[in-house]
Amino acid sequence: MNPLRSDRLRALLLCALLVLGGCATMQPDPLPSWSEGPARQAIVDFVRQTTDAASLQFVPPDRRIATFDQDGTLWVEQPMYAQVMFALDRVKDVVRAQPALANEEPFKAVVTGDREAMAKFTERDIFKIVAVTESGLSIEAFQQVVKRWLATAKHPKFQRPYTELVYAPMLEAMKYLRANGYRTYIATGGGQQFVRAFAEEVYGIPPEQVVGTMFRINYEIRDGKPALMSAPELFFLNDKGGKPVGINMVIGRRPQAAFGNSDGDRQMLEWATGSDGARLAMIVLHDDAVREYAYGPAAGQPDSKIGTFTEDLYDEAKKRGWTVISMKRDWKRVFAFER
Amino acid sequence: MNPLRSDRLRALLLCALLVLGGCATMQPDPLPSWSEGPARQAIVDFVRQTTDAASLQFVPPDRRIATFDQDGTLWVEQPMYAQVMFALDRVKDVVRAQPALANEEPFKAVVTGDREAMAKFTERDIFKIVAVTESGLSIEAFQQVVKRWLATAKHPKFQRPYTELVYAPMLEAMKYLRANGYRTYIATGGGQQFVRAFAEEVYGIPPEQVVGTMFRINYEIRDGKPALMSAPELFFLNDKGGKPVGINMVIGRRPQAAFGNSDGDRQMLEWATGSDGARLAMIVLHDDAVREYAYGPAAGQPDSKIGTFTEDLYDEAKKRGWTVISMKRDWKRVFAFER
Repeated sequence: MNPLRSDRLRALLLCALLVLGGCATMQPDPLPSWSEGPARQAIVDFVRQTTDAASLQFVPPDRRIATFDQDGTLWVEQPMYAQVMFALDRVKDVVRAQPALANEEPFKAVVTGDREAMAKFTERDIFKIVAVTESGLSIEAFQQVVKRWLATAKHPKFQRPYTELVYAPMLEAMKYLRANGYRTYIATGGGQQFVRAFAEEVYGIPPEQVVGTMFRINYEIRDGKPALMSAPELFFLNDKGGKPVGINMVIGRRPQAAFGNSDGDRQMLEWATGSDGARLAMIVLHDDAVREYAYGPAAGQPDSKIGTFTEDLYDEAKKRGWTVISMKRDWKRVFAFER
Repeated sequence: MNPLRSDRLRALLLCALLVLGGCATMQPDPLPSWSEGPARQAIVDFVRQTTDAASLQFVPPDRRIATFDQDGTLWVEQPMYAQVMFALDRVKDVVRAQPALANEEPFKAVVTGDREAMAKFTERDIFKIVAVTESGLSIEAFQQVVKRWLATAKHPKFQRPYTELVYAPMLEAMKYLRANGYRTYIATGGGQQFVRAFAEEVYGIPPEQVVGTMFRINYEIRDGKPALMSAPELFFLNDKGGKPVGINMVIGRRPQAAFGNSDGDRQMLEWATGSDGARLAMIVLHDDAVREYAYGPAAGQPDSKIGTFTEDLYDEAKKRGWTVISMKRDWKRVFAFER
C-alpha cells in the first residue's frame, strides 16, 4: 500500500503542513494600538524576560499572573464609575419594591432627583446606594439586571454603551500576556458580582479571575431551591490595602505584573513588585482630554475625586521604576471604535 | 528530493506515529482503588455524560468544576482535625512570643497540659487557638511553619505524617476528573492558608483552587517591604452555608460535582446539585474501623463530634440521589501505603 494513500496519514501530513505554515508566517503585531516608546517596550521586555526559558528571569507558567484594576485602567471611569451610574438608575426600582426607602437618605435624594443633595454625597452614601442595588436578588438575577442595564445605558459623553468604552491598548496587552501563558485577573474596587456579569464577554476574563469588592451573600432556600442572596452590607472592600488581600483570597499568589491608574492601586503595585525577579507595574495617566479625559492631579493634570492619581504616587512610580502610561503619547488609539 | 529524507518531515511522521500509537494503547484503569459498585459507577457515568460532546448533558470545559471538602473527604480527620493538632503544637511557640497569653484561657489549658480543661473546649475555644497560631506571621512565613510541622508531626493512630493519610481513591477520582477537563477545587472548613501550604504537593491543587476558612489578613509595610500579615480574627467561616458563599467568592461558578463527608458539606452538595444537567454529589461514610475509623451517626455508625454525618443528611442523600461512598465496601484500599 502506498502510505500516502492512507487517509489517516494524509490527514496527519495536512496537519503537519498547517503547523509548519503557521510557524513560518510573520506574527502580526500583538500591540498595534501602542506607540513605540518606553511603555510598549516595558511590556514586550517583561514578556520576553519572563517567558524565555534561557532567561535568568524566567517565570514558570503557573506563576504567570497579571492583575488589572478596572475603572480607569481597562475602561472609562469619568465622570463617574459605571457601577455608580448603574446604581443611580437601579435604585428607583429598588425603592419601588421597598417603598420605605423613599423617605430615607441617600435614597430620597436620588428618587426625588435632588441634584444639590446628590452632589454632596459622601463615599459612604454612594456605597449605601451601590449595596442596596445588589441586595435582595440571587447572584444570577443580579447579573441579569446588570446585563440588561449594560445593553441599554449610554455614557453621557460618548453616547455609547459602557462596554464599548474599554481601552483597546489594554485589551491588546491582556491578550498578549495570555498568549504568553499569563493568566489575567481583574482586581477592582468595583463589585465582584457586577464585574463578573460582563468580564468574560468584554475582557475574556472568566468569573474565577475577577477579584472585587464583595457585599454580604447568604445561602438560603427559596421556593425549595438553594440560592445565594445578596444582602445590603459591605463584606470586603477591594481597594487600596484591600487589593493585595483580595488577590491573596482569590489567587493565593503574588502577581508578576499589575496595572492600575490611581492611588487605589498603589498597594497592589507595591505588592506585585515587592519581591524578586522581573516584575511589571504600569499606571495609566489620563492626560488626554480630547480622546478621553485629563485628570490627576499627577503630572500637572486637573485634580479629580474619581480615580485620583496623586503626585505622591507619581513620585513613588518614578522612584521604583514603575511605568507611567501616557494615554496621549503611548496610545495610538484609545477605543476600538476610533478606526 | 525524496520527501522522507527531509529531517523535518521525518520528525513530523515520527510525531504522528507516536500520536496514533498513544490512541491505540489500552488506557490503564483510572480508578484502581475503587471496587466495582454504584459509587465507582456514579463517577464514571458522570464523567462520560458530561464530557461526551454528543451527550445531552455535555458540560463545556470552562464549567467543569468539582469541589472537594478536605477533612474526612480527602484525608483523615479523626481523632481530631490535623489543623487543630497543628494549632495545639504551635500555640506553645505563640505563647513564648506573647507571654501574656499564658494566663489567658483557652491558651493556659494547652500550655499547662490541663487535659480536663481541654476536653471541655468549645468550638469557639478551638477557633481562638487556631486563629492565634496563624497570626503575627506573614502569609509566606506561616506556610513555612505549616510545612515544617507536616514534615515531622505524626498521626497518633497511624504513626505516619498527615500528608500520607490522604485517601487513595479520592486522589484517583480527582486525577480522573482533571484528565477529563475538570478543575478540582478544595472547599474546606479548614484554614485557606493552612491548606494552601501543602495542597499543591499533596493533591496537585494550586493555591488559587483552595477555598477555605479565612482569618483577617492585613496589608502592612514591614522593614520597608510590603507584607500580608495574619491577624487573630475570623474573617470568613467556610463551613455549612458558608461553603457555597466561599465557592462563589473564589470560583464564581456553581460546581457540577461536589464531594463531602459531613453535615458541614450539606449546603455545598445542595448548591452543586440544585441546578439543571448532570450533577454529581458524593458523601464518604466512614464505616471502616479496621482500616480507618467508623463514625456517623448515620447508617448505624457511632456518633462523633468531629465530622458528624447525621441520619438526617443520610436521608437527604437518599432522597436526592446523592451517592454515599461506603469506605468499607467501595474502596479496595484506603491509603496508598497499604500496598
